[in-house]
Parts: sequence; C-alpha cells; structure tokens
Amino acid sequence: MRQSELFTKTLKEIPKDEKSKNAELLIRAGFIYKEMAGVYSYLPLGLRVLNKINNIISEEMNAIGGQEIFMTCLQNPEIWQKTERWSDEIVDNWFKTRLKNDIELGLGFTHEEAVTSIMKNHVKSYKDLPCYVYQIQTKFRNELRPKSGIMRCREFLMKDLYSFSRTQDEHNNFYEKSKEAYMKIFTRLGLGEKTYLTFASGGVFSKYSHEFQTLSDAGEDLIYVDKNKKIAINKEVYSEEILTELGLEKNNLIEEKAIEVGNIFSLGKKYSEPLGLKYLDEEGKQQSVIMGSYGIGPGRVMGAIVEVNCDDKGMIWPKEIAPYQIHLISLAKTIEEKERTEEIYQKLLSLGQEVLFDDRENLSAGQKFADSDLIGIPLKYIVSTKTLAEESIEIKERKTGETKIIKIADLK
Amino acid sequence: MRQSELFTKTLKEIPKDEKSKNAELLIRAGFIYKEMAGVYSYLPLGLRVLNKINNIISEEMNAIGGQEIFMTCLQNPEIWQKTERWSDEIVDNWFKTRLKNDIELGLGFTHEEAVTSIMKNHVKSYKDLPCYVYQIQTKFRNELRPKSGIMRCREFLMKDLYSFSRTQDEHNNFYEKSKEAYMKIFTRLGLGEKTYLTFASGGVFSKYSHEFQTLSDAGEDLIYVDKNKKIAINKEVYSEEILTELGLEKNNLIEEKAIEVGNIFSLGKKYSEPLGLKYLDEEGKQQSVIMGSYGIGPGRVMGAIVEVNCDDKGMIWPKEIAPYQIHLISLAKTIEEKERTEEIYQKLLSLGQEVLFDDRENLSAGQKFADSDLIGIPLKYIVSTKTLAEESIEIKERKTGETKIIKIADLK
Repeated sequence: MRQSELFTKTLKEIPKDEKSKNAELLIRAGFIYKEMAGVYSYLPLGLRVLNKINNIISEEMNAIGGQEIFMTCLQNPEIWQKTERWSDEIVDNWFKTRLKNDIELGLGFTHEEAVTSIMKNHVKSYKDLPCYVYQIQTKFRNELRPKSGIMRCREFLMKDLYSFSRTQDEHNNFYEKSKEAYMKIFTRLGLGEKTYLTFASGGVFSKYSHEFQTLSDAGEDLIYVDKNKKIAINKEVYSEEILTELGLEKNNLIEEKAIEVGNIFSLGKKYSEPLGLKYLDEEGKQQSVIMGSYGIGPGRVMGAIVEVNCDDKGMIWPKEIAPYQIHLISLAKTIEEKERTEEIYQKLLSLGQEVLFDDRENLSAGQKFADSDLIGIPLKYIVSTKTLAEESIEIKERKTGETKIIKIADLK
Repeated sequence: MRQSELFTKTLKEIPKDEKSKNAELLIRAGFIYKEMAGVYSYLPLGLRVLNKINNIISEEMNAIGGQEIFMTCLQNPEIWQKTERWSDEIVDNWFKTRLKNDIELGLGFTHEEAVTSIMKNHVKSYKDLPCYVYQIQTKFRNELRPKSGIMRCREFLMKDLYSFSRTQDEHNNFYEKSKEAYMKIFTRLGLGEKTYLTFASGGVFSKYSHEFQTLSDAGEDLIYVDKNKKIAINKEVYSEEILTELGLEKNNLIEEKAIEVGNIFSLGKKYSEPLGLKYLDEEGKQQSVIMGSYGIGPGRVMGAIVEVNCDDKGMIWPKEIAPYQIHLISLAKTIEEKERTEEIYQKLLSLGQEVLFDDRENLSAGQKFADSDLIGIPLKYIVSTKTLAEESIEIKERKTGETKIIKIADLK
C-alpha cells in the first residue's frame, strides 16, 4: 500500500475524553475512530490488525473442531425469558430496541440462548454429538462508563465458541483442549509470556471458570500470580482453600493488575435444560446436553497488545499481526532515486511481502520516522541517497532500534 | 469437510410463517436459521457462501481503489440531526436504543453521516482526494413486514462504499468505473446475464440513480427492460421523457419483476455540506467534497442467486460461490471400499479441492442424493461398489444432470 494513497493520516489531536493509552495511540496513528465512549470504528490499518487477530483465532478454533457460524445481533425475548436473562434487573447491561409493532427486542451481549435454540434443529441423537460451534460477531453491552479504550466497549467483536457434549467427561476433555488452543492463540499474538491461566469464579455447574489474564497496568482485574508455575488466581476467588487445592504457596504469589483477554466456562445444563436441548442416548433415553462457552474479544486483545507493546514513540506490533510487515520509507530525492525506490517496492511485493510504502512527498525524514514509530510496523526499510549509492537498504527494527545494511540484490 | 461431522442436517420442516423460496430452501438445507421475521443466522454452509460473495465484492472494490474499514452499528444522534435524518418521521425504519443515562442512539441503516464524520479527520487538502472507502458490515432496518426471506431483512450485511471527489467530473469518472465493477461482480456471481443496469430516481444532486436489477418473479420491483441494449428503467421513473433521453423505444421494452441487487447514488454535497467535510483547493479556497454511495447486500445477493438457480429438488450454486465445489458421495459398503473412498477424499483435498464428503453411515443412496440436490453443490462425485470395481468415479452435474465416468488415477 502506498502511504500517499492511504486515506488516513496520523493525528496530533485526540478526543478530549479519551483517557486510555491504547485508544490514544490507535487514534493518533489512524487505526481507529472514536464514535462515542466505548464505540470505535476500525480504519484500514486497524482493520488489517483486527482481521489478522480474527484469522489466528479462527485457525485455532477450526483446529479443535470448531464450525463457524454467524448469529444475529437482534435477539428474540422468548428464548431469554426461558433462561431468566431477559429482565434488566437480572442482566444490567442490555441494549434493547423495539419493532414497529412495539415488541421489544434485545441486542445480543452473548449468544448461549441463541446457539442453543439453533442446535435444537440439528441435535437429536448421541450420534450428533459432541459438536463445537463458534462465531466472530458483534456484541453490545450497555456499559455505564467505558474507560479502557477498545478493551471495554459498548459495541465490540467477540469470538464465542459453544461446546455441546454428551457427558461431563467428554466436556472436560474438550475444556482442557480449549485451554491449550487459547494459550496457542495468545502465544501467536505475542502475548504468551505475559498471559496466565487464571482461576476465576464458576457458576452453579462448576466450581471455577478460567480466565486468560495478560499482565498490564492498564488491566481492570487484580490477580495473584505464581510465575514459576505459570498459573494465577483472580482476587475474587482467592482464599486459603483454593491455595491448598491448587498446591500453591502464598509466598510465591505476586499481586498484579491484568487484562482479561479470554475466558472459558463450564455451563453444564444451565441453558440446555430450560431451552430443551436434549438428545437420545444409546439406551434411547432423553438427556440434556452438557455445554461450555469460550470467549475471546479480538478488539480487547488488540488493545492489550498495544498496552504491553508500546513506548513513548508509539506502538510496536508483533510480526504476525502487524498491519504490514515492512514499512518501506523513501528518502529519495531525485527522479532516478525515486524510480529505484519504486523498483525496491515492486520487488518486495513480488516476494509476497506486505509493505506500507511511505512514498509521500515534501515530508522530512524526521516526520516520516516519527509517523513510522507511531504506526509501529516491526521493520523499517529505509532507502536514501546514501543507501542507494551503496546499492543497499538500511533495515531498522522498531522494537530494538537495531539497524543493519543489506544489499538490494540480496532481497529475497 | 466430513458430512458426518457437519453439525447441520437437512430439515423436513420449515417455520410456518416462511413464505419465500430462498429462505425455505436455505433453511431446509441447513444454510441459515430463522431467528424471527427478517432476521436470519448463517450456519456453516451458508456462511461459506456468504464469505465467498463478500470476497468477490471486496476484490472488485479493492481493484477500483476502495480502502476497507469497519464502522459501528451504534450511531450518535448528533451527526444525524445535522443532516435531518434523525427524526422517525423523516426516516421511518430506524431501530433506536438507549444508553444507561437515557441518551437515545440509533442502529445504523446506512453510514453516510458516520463515514463523512470520519473523513473530516483525514481530508484537509485537494491532495487528500479523491478517496474511496468501503465496509462490509451489519445494518438494521425496522421493516414493517419483511417477507422476501434473506432478500429484505431487519438485520443484514451490506457492502457500502463511499466516494469522495473534488469535482463533479472526478466523481462522474469514478461513478462510471463503479458501474463496470458492479457488473463484474454480478457476472462473477453468476447473475450477469439476468442483471440489468437500471435507471431509478435520483435526488437533489442528480437526476437519476442506478440500480442493478436481477430478473426474477421473486423480485419486489417492476422494471422495463430493453434486452438488446442491456438496459432497464425502474417503473418509478418511467416516462416518455426518459425514453427519449436514453434513446429507447417503448415497443422494445418488456415489463419484468426484478430483485434490486445493488444501487449507486450521486450524493453531491448533500452530506459534506451539513457535516462540514471540506478541502482546500489548489487556489487555497475551501470547497465541499462531492460524494457518492455504492451499495450491495451480500445476503440479498445470496437470496437472489437461490431464486434464479433452483429447481424442485433444491438449490444449484454457481461454482465460484458454492459452499464446496465437489460433493463426494460415498456409497461404499465394505471396509475396503470405504478405505478406498477415503483415499479419494484425501486425494481431492491434496489437490486443493473444496470437498463436502458424505461419509454418513446407514443412509440410502436415495437419501444422500436428495440431500445433495437440496444443498446444490455443482458437482457430485459418486463412489460405489460398481465405480470402484472399474477404478473410477461417476461425476454428475447438479445443474444439467449430465454424468461422466473418470478413472481415479486421472484425478488432477
């Protein structure tokens, strides 16, 4: 992509009410636009990152047998009344709206009820189970005061997978597999080292749920971390009892602020029973399906990545999700130099590289470098009168600032 | 994909209130699920088709310089008040909702106001123009009585592109390019022959807008078609005057029912003026940007494709957007036959083919063929005791019913 054609520019000003680091940097770099508190649009560079995060999540969900679907935002009250989650007194963050005939609808904040209803058409017998269904889709939560940028939104994308199993064992087996898939995802997203499997509060059907918490001062959660055992406990369930259960020692735990980047829940029959999702077992007896739900917010993950990968100059994207892998920066002056830089751009494209080409005219080297540091593409390829005189390119790593010189002829 | 693992099944029953052919077939084949009138979820086979349609649209939008973004459903009233489109008396299909502090928000039915606001951050000078921005995103329209299946929904995906130009000439130039891009899209989607560029009513800033209308009895529009000149006039603007203008003769026109699969509008300064989207021209004078908007509903297109490509047995997908290109149907009986069929499946996958493999046990050939006809994958590859005895596969075209036999060794 030629930066001269990219419609977004880096900005000096950000909205006055924006307090979070992630949104500040993403807005200044032209990745997102703030529609209102907790509601952000994604611009081309931001959408490229978001799509790469989505692709990684999808790949890992497919790898454990997930089948992708796409459910609706508009929610029929009937199914939510059956599980007693329709009332605003029980669920306090509904957005609701009305049809012309005044029937009230909800905007989905999650999809257990919806997916369970769909499955009733397709699950009849033990032969139809287990199955795993997921989507990457827009959710709505009527937050009172969203203040963590794209990490806590009123409207946001969510990957939500739902598992449908015959027995508790079959469920537990998948639940463990999902933990591994989640850690793979966070590792691929560059958050592996800072992300801890964290015990959190369960529900009627399970003692604990599990969160994936990424250490960061921008986090809204407090967790107790055992760094050696790579495990953590959310403050909300911390007790002597859980220490004993997990074989952890109080002295080895450190209190840390963290961002919840994912969570997984055992749901038991909480939704299958009231909604009537049953199957005939091998003996011909009707049984309720055992369910689980598994969430990751791609936008929140993107915000977390910015929070833990930035410095005073801007963002630093991990290679696999950077909007482009290479930021080719032209400091060419003469027509001939510009033509040679263009050839390098074409060469990189022909090698299958993703390149943002700063071909903008009338900007100083300093302005181009400052924009590049803010945008945070992992590698700068700098082409100038000096490097061209030596048939070379200067390569500078955004993260470390390390530079090296390579010959143009050696590009491969 | 193994059909034994695909969680959706073909269904005998469809919702009682479903009157449209497209939704009936898509529901029976397990492509979609009806949440309520005009609100449908996409299941794995349906989502695969939808994504393929989206990809074709994206490719052609990128080819004419479109830059992809992703705006929000939640809409801030302020910007809509400026263009006088907030009031329910002026726009009668808003869905509205409320924040906790009782401020009313809208659910976007289109995004001219939103995109114009975003562009104000990035367009300052004539050097920043022209530019073209699009998204594929969920829209909401509070339809009184949706009745055309996935062709007229209360919640639906839309590709909306917005153009920003300096002069009317520059705008017209892109507008003509967009017509060609649209016809390319409909041709790739298999709708080329039945789809007509159609003159429709314009607005304050242009005499006409243009629709792309696909001939079908399921259509809600009436158009007058000149089949030789490959052009049409929407009944709403039909007059002696337009006939003269377009050089058409009344006698060459046939009245047809049609589905509006796309539309393009010249907007002039309708949105840029009230929202203050201006640029400094080469003489340093402030000018309002000239805009256009360009819509295609991928779901509606999918519905239209079903309507014009079906028979009494089910759907018939064009190759480029079929959920899978090949439906491999196993009629193998012995373990050895099953193993050999499995080898054929693996061979096809290794050749990069998209294959739905009907490996289900205990179903008759008749049941498998009926399901396959309903699902509508373009080619059946049938493997049976008989074909295996001859080291071959029977290939049957869904559309024509033509069959041929090929040797397994010749698969490539």
